[in-house]
Amino acid sequence: MPLPALVVIGQPSLDFPSASTELRVAKFDDPIVDAMNLGITRGDGVFESVGIYGGRAQAVDAHLNRFAHSASLLELPRPNLEAYRAAVELGIKLLGDVPDAYCKYVLTRGIEGRDSGPTGYAFFDLNPDWTAQRTAGIGVVTLSRGYALDVAQTAPWLLQGAKTLSYAINRSVIREANRRGADDVLFTTTDDFVLEGPTANVLLRFGDHFVTPRTDRGVLHGTAQLGAFAFCESKGLTTEYRAVRTDELTSADSIWLTNSQRLAAPVHTLDGRAVEVDGEFTIEMNDFLLSRRN
Amino acid sequence: MPLPALVVIGQPSLDFPSASTELRVAKFDDPIVDAMNLGITRGDGVFESVGIYGGRAQAVDAHLNRFAHSASLLELPRPNLEAYRAAVELGIKLLGDVPDAYCKYVLTRGIEGRDSGPTGYAFFDLNPDWTAQRTAGIGVVTLSRGYALDVAQTAPWLLQGAKTLSYAINRSVIREANRRGADDVLFTTTDDFVLEGPTANVLLRFGDHFVTPRTDRGVLHGTAQLGAFAFCESKGLTTEYRAVRTDELTSADSIWLTNSQRLAAPVHTLDGRAVEVDGEFTIEMNDFLLSRRN
Repeated sequence: MPLPALVVIGQPSLDFPSASTELRVAKFDDPIVDAMNLGITRGDGVFESVGIYGGRAQAVDAHLNRFAHSASLLELPRPNLEAYRAAVELGIKLLGDVPDAYCKYVLTRGIEGRDSGPTGYAFFDLNPDWTAQRTAGIGVVTLSRGYALDVAQTAPWLLQGAKTLSYAINRSVIREANRRGADDVLFTTTDDFVLEGPTANVLLRFGDHFVTPRTDRGVLHGTAQLGAFAFCESKGLTTEYRAVRTDELTSADSIWLTNSQRLAAPVHTLDGRAVEVDGEFTIEMNDFLLSRRN
Repeated sequence: MPLPALVVIGQPSLDFPSASTELRVAKFDDPIVDAMNLGITRGDGVFESVGIYGGRAQAVDAHLNRFAHSASLLELPRPNLEAYRAAVELGIKLLGDVPDAYCKYVLTRGIEGRDSGPTGYAFFDLNPDWTAQRTAGIGVVTLSRGYALDVAQTAPWLLQGAKTLSYAINRSVIREANRRGADDVLFTTTDDFVLEGPTANVLLRFGDHFVTPRTDRGVLHGTAQLGAFAFCESKGLTTEYRAVRTDELTSADSIWLTNSQRLAAPVHTLDGRAVEVDGEFTIEMNDFLLSRRN
């Protein structure tokens, strides 16, 4: 099968009966989305990215649960999780025997005002080679997200904590990082707290204690971060979700950004300042993350 | 021609030579966008909405200029403005003899990492009947955008002032307004300044003086707002762009939200408090806006 592989989901929500409930395999560059789809015209939809290693999708349930949560924050039709699960399984067959791949699946609100029902599909491709990022690490800059820490509570209409298709800012900040000679970004709040990256969570190590920002404060609950905490606990290290102040970034022993595709990338430079990379520990953590099963 | 009408733009940017440079007419619900297009997966693109009244597009140049400006803020390939202009002209022919219509045109970054070049198209449909909103007016609630007034200067990576496809929040706030029994929203800053609506600018009247928030502070420069100021000046009234504090909303004589489709909608209620609607003046202003030519 030529890659990327594409699976169109006939019935992406049980709230809207569809003519076809089938999964349909299509070529990745076949046009399948209508021009007036709100997924394009308004970024009005949600998505998930899932790591696929050695022919197995990782943290499938955690991703499906987060997908449903994002959809509920946007008041979208409820995604048909079993259809998405089946699409992932089909996609893995289409990928064939590849070591390191990903799946991205989306749900959009469909065409505005036309009761066409939502649009859903999943695509599958090889991951780029992240070896250097997973070992030598990445350079990161902090950039303000422009919000205070409590924004998810005080202004829930800003959809913090939902993984939406409106990710133009998440792309823009990477361009800003590149201009500053860095690879990735760590968002901060206007009241000097640490949030997350545009496509990753952040882990800080203080001795034998690992910390990540509270996930009820405008931060997505990452499946790789969950896995990293499980790894730490398996090593007898302690873990904690709490508010993290920006000045703690300078006192942390080591820092990682984690996500489902790149997994744990150690930060070697933060805002131009060197950060210690614990190479052996990171390899062990990534081996653990790669070995996860659903 | 059955509506909506759809025009696919063969060469949306001259920075990327395309196989076809033609405009192609398609059915509105023909799938024309690939599943991995960044316009969907990341809301990574820009758009404009243009009013079409009596067979003429309004403020064509102002919209094209703003489109190019938005694209530059996102570092997109430069839109081929003459192709977009031609698409609008073709769309008006396809619309035929209709009194009140709109065009929306978009430019997306195309497929990630595949050098496919950007995607561009325009679609055209009748406007809903906005008579009630243009005369009796609309109920509006203020909602925080979560940012301070100076965010466009201090954090340009947040893309304030660009009309992007990442509009999930702009849709979410309308749902919040509806929950509060209102029709539309006026965004405010965390430091108590007035910004704009999710799809409109705001005008405040103080006696013979009209005020709108400064457009260099996270506010789109609206073509209908420009037209409304031209109308005011033609009547000998004065106009001003400046920072507007939220407490001025209670001292304004009248308030309007303006955009290219609904034109000037008087606000009859703001956060549950009645606001005076000057019906005759509003009719005159909308007649002026409807009579605009490029």
